[in-house]
Amino acid sequence: MFKGIYAPIATPFADDQIDKQALRANLDRYSASRLAGLVVLGSNGEFAYLDIDEKMFLIEFVRQNTAAEKSIIAGTGCESTRDTIRLTKFAASVGADAALVITPSFYKGSMNEKALERFFLDVAEASPIPIMLYNMPRNTGLNMSAGLVCRLAQHENIVGVKDSSGNIVQIADIIHNSPADFAVFAGSGSFLYPTLALGGVGGTLAVANILPELCVSLYDAVMEGNHQLAKELQHKLLAPNAAVTSRWGIAGLKAALDLLGYRGGLPRRPMLPLDEAHLPELKQILIDAGAELP
Amino acid sequence: MFKGIYAPIATPFADDQIDKQALRANLDRYSASRLAGLVVLGSNGEFAYLDIDEKMFLIEFVRQNTAAEKSIIAGTGCESTRDTIRLTKFAASVGADAALVITPSFYKGSMNEKALERFFLDVAEASPIPIMLYNMPRNTGLNMSAGLVCRLAQHENIVGVKDSSGNIVQIADIIHNSPADFAVFAGSGSFLYPTLALGGVGGTLAVANILPELCVSLYDAVMEGNHQLAKELQHKLLAPNAAVTSRWGIAGLKAALDLLGYRGGLPRRPMLPLDEAHLPELKQILIDAGAELP
Amino acid sequence: MFKGIYAPIATPFADDQIDKQALRANLDRYSASRLAGLVVLGSNGEFAYLDIDEKMFLIEFVRQNTAAEKSIIAGTGCESTRDTIRLTKFAASVGADAALVITPSFYKGSMNEKALERFFLDVAEASPIPIMLYNMPRNTGLNMSAGLVCRLAQHENIVGVKDSSGNIVQIADIIHNSPADFAVFAGSGSFLYPTLALGGVGGTLAVANILPELCVSLYDAVMEGNHQLAKELQHKLLAPNAAVTSRWGIAGLKAALDLLGYRGGLPRRPMLPLDEAHLPELKQILIDAGAELP
Amino acid sequence: MFKGIYAPIATPFADDQIDKQALRANLDRYSASRLAGLVVLGSNGEFAYLDIDEKMFLIEFVRQNTAAEKSIIAGTGCESTRDTIRLTKFAASVGADAALVITPSFYKGSMNEKALERFFLDVAEASPIPIMLYNMPRNTGLNMSAGLVCRLAQHENIVGVKDSSGNIVQIADIIHNSPADFAVFAGSGSFLYPTLALGGVGGTLAVANILPELCVSLYDAVMEGNHQLAKELQHKLLAPNAAVTSRWGIAGLKAALDLLGYRGGLPRRPMLPLDEAHLPELKQILIDAGAELP
Repeated sequence: MFKGIYAPIATPFADDQIDKQALRANLDRYSASRLAGLVVLGSNGEFAYLDIDEKMFLIEFVRQNTAAEKSIIAGTGCESTRDTIRLTKFAASVGADAALVITPSFYKGSMNEKALERFFLDVAEASPIPIMLYNMPRNTGLNMSAGLVCRLAQHENIVGVKDSSGNIVQIADIIHNSPADFAVFAGSGSFLYPTLALGGVGGTLAVANILPELCVSLYDAVMEGNHQLAKELQHKLLAPNAAVTSRWGIAGLKAALDLLGYRGGLPRRPMLPLDEAHLPELKQILIDAGAELP
Repeated sequence: MFKGIYAPIATPFADDQIDKQALRANLDRYSASRLAGLVVLGSNGEFAYLDIDEKMFLIEFVRQNTAAEKSIIAGTGCESTRDTIRLTKFAASVGADAALVITPSFYKGSMNEKALERFFLDVAEASPIPIMLYNMPRNTGLNMSAGLVCRLAQHENIVGVKDSSGNIVQIADIIHNSPADFAVFAGSGSFLYPTLALGGVGGTLAVANILPELCVSLYDAVMEGNHQLAKELQHKLLAPNAAVTSRWGIAGLKAALDLLGYRGGLPRRPMLPLDEAHLPELKQILIDAGAELP
Repeated sequence: MFKGIYAPIATPFADDQIDKQALRANLDRYSASRLAGLVVLGSNGEFAYLDIDEKMFLIEFVRQNTAAEKSIIAGTGCESTRDTIRLTKFAASVGADAALVITPSFYKGSMNEKALERFFLDVAEASPIPIMLYNMPRNTGLNMSAGLVCRLAQHENIVGVKDSSGNIVQIADIIHNSPADFAVFAGSGSFLYPTLALGGVGGTLAVANILPELCVSLYDAVMEGNHQLAKELQHKLLAPNAAVTSRWGIAGLKAALDLLGYRGGLPRRPMLPLDEAHLPELKQILIDAGAELP
Repeated sequence: MFKGIYAPIATPFADDQIDKQALRANLDRYSASRLAGLVVLGSNGEFAYLDIDEKMFLIEFVRQNTAAEKSIIAGTGCESTRDTIRLTKFAASVGADAALVITPSFYKGSMNEKALERFFLDVAEASPIPIMLYNMPRNTGLNMSAGLVCRLAQHENIVGVKDSSGNIVQIADIIHNSPADFAVFAGSGSFLYPTLALGGVGGTLAVANILPELCVSLYDAVMEGNHQLAKELQHKLLAPNAAVTSRWGIAGLKAALDLLGYRGGLPRRPMLPLDEAHLPELKQILIDAGAELP
């Protein structure tokens, strides 16, 4: 059901408020791209910095301003089961196609497998739309084991996982031990090709915000069995992917968006903007990856 | 200014709503205790599971229903600087004496010392009430170094730190390198005595919710130079402290409150209640620590 | 130069002494296999439990008792530069084709990139045979960054790396940024296919001790461009690989060797043998992977 | 039985060989100090860089060249049970008073509590001299839990623990739950006072190599109930202790020895010597701590 390349979009701000015009401009370009869809309120969208009103606004706005054939997946995970279900129901009511639900993580010591399993089942039961699990250890400090994911994959309303761990053995385990129609997505462009080669069906990639065509081409190459091309594209993706994730994070992503004619702007505080001293290197990385700067 | 023993209170729920009656009952007992004050919206208060309306309600309610001579410190840290300042100003407006501000942590990779320093300075500048730093690596996955804390301690509106790291060398470093009037609080009863022996001035302790008199007695013993007694009380505190923190967390704390005639109740989902099989052991731990069960 | 599948062999003991007869029996079977070569004194060989005389004996014995066309790589890494160079020179003197050198790791706090770079250059300069770097964070608690590996890859006597980190992004980075003839080997069968798909040229795999033909078939499939088969074989390899590494370690490997008609025996203390209760599951894992039990 | 302050001595080298003359000079000064004893082949002695002949030589030499009333504890822990027992028996034969045995750690995945318990019991059974457990997570990547230590403390030949974890809660737990005559030693000067205040009876401290009198004075202050003085001395100890451990390690320790008229010299490779740029700061730290530089 869910497959292909998704961009977890950034949230542009102006004067610390959501910049609708800037966002619409980005959505127009993504609508015209070959992306399968968008994720709104993913980690890259600074969802942790948005209040509940902004979150609700964004889901609706993105659905309304994106081409109808693109899937919209809404990040609806909150710390409490109650808030997660509320936001998931709202997302469904405004047309989101699925909800991406991250592991609650503040009380790490209590979030054992039993608690996490109960959480995801509670949300899946209550949700009118399909649930995609979201494993993001680098931010949450918690990993969802392959065993837990595969148990949850048995639930009919849990349709896939975005695994951002980068643990390729865990990803292989999940693919191997989950139902055939359970969608395993790479959570980063840095391991997109290995994930697809092992049987994954898509990717939700920060780098797809800035280089959507490169990401889609890699996906197509694997689907067509052209592994030589896929390998080359994967290597090409390494540096720009690192620039907008592990190296410079959202600050790097927003700076890259600006360089490429999208609308990035400043992150919301406490996240600091990219140090301007890094801009020439960032620019070169984008050029080396074949991007055309305006 | 701030010194002594504080209880970071639990939030009782009934039918998944804040149970005002239960909370008032607890506050009555704490008002009659020798505690220096209370922390509302600390980690033990399940603040991560509360929505903004509940948070605002709680700060005001706790201030209004606690004896006037007890200090009220409100946990106002949010992921964004904007939300943190908003909630801090609100807390000030309803009479909180200080704000306890945890490190934003979701975007760990971007929360370097520069970003954290900017964050706390922004909040301190904007806050009408004094700020206490809150370092809680077990939950946030981030540690505030002694160097960072000591730099922030230079700001006149940053008056102390609650360090829950348990890293006694770091605590010693902070005491040694911060101004004499900077208040260093132990963040757990398990290292209260060592912190005070090194020059700390207080504690914000989950275990103070259930054994306030024991905690205050330990504090008094150190202040009076009775280190033999302090040592004995510290050893007595180890098991009950672990029961309501590292072993069984908030679920253990709430169960202990119920056993002791306070009002605990169930944690909010996704946190699971204490497995009933542990109740006899918990009961024995409380009895061994000298608690009188009703 | 170095490519293909290597088995890092186990060291069989009898009465806590090296069991030459058992070892020779294993070497006979490996000599008749399609393996490219063997690693003696790898982690799986319990090299940390062997004294210096045993280490020297083993290198020579394995070289003498293995078919001449098989490469022999000797694990010669010690904590000190001095001991490492001594053992490397000895290995060269008895015919080892290359030395596999693990990062010194006891004084982790001092083993920064500068110290590690100096170490490997000192060893490479002194060694009569080519050096393969060995990155094994799970055992050493240290990771060699892609940057460090790629700087070392410039040295003419450093010809490859065995990366057991399982970090597929790091592996991709190394392949991308090292000279074309620098040999990147997967350090575990669990990520053999992704490593080869990205441009790696071999694997040094515990699981190759028990399922050499399956590992070589996977390697051949990738070399022939048959990615569908490679994917299937990789999935087949997951469970037996985990059984002899992350789940049950060397104890599992030795038990599996015994089940398959090789000679495993007991690990040396303090490593405990596999709990017999796990034997039926281990047996089933081997059968499911297509192994024929005698 | 064992109590007071021990210095885990450095091993001076000249031309990469043990420098007996330099070592004897150090031992003469320590013999004239108020230290309770010395640890030979502790982590600070670069024991991981010494071959077996050097280890045996050192134990004997240190015993013979140190005042008879000083206890000598020999670090005899090796990765294998066999080697550990051999070296422990040798240490006993040349007059060591006890053996300090570190957790084997290379095969971390297999070193569960059952294996570690078996290891220490095997060694304790075979050893003619008392065993002191050595918990050093920063180097080994393994922690011995309070539960494990307290179970082992029941064995009549296991008489104490050197805990270098810095986890003061764990240290309190061990003191609380072990027999009254089980000796708990701080493994670093940075938490010496808290350990003693909680009931510990000694310390094995890198910093005792360079500031033995300061360490002994702190110990005496606690024993005499002068906690105000103990606190002040602890704060004084923080900076020099960090300089020879967490900041600059053995390289810092050896440089400090040289500055103070002891004989330090260069660490053995791969450990690099202290960058000379740090010497002025190191010197100032020593002066601030009251050391008299020759």
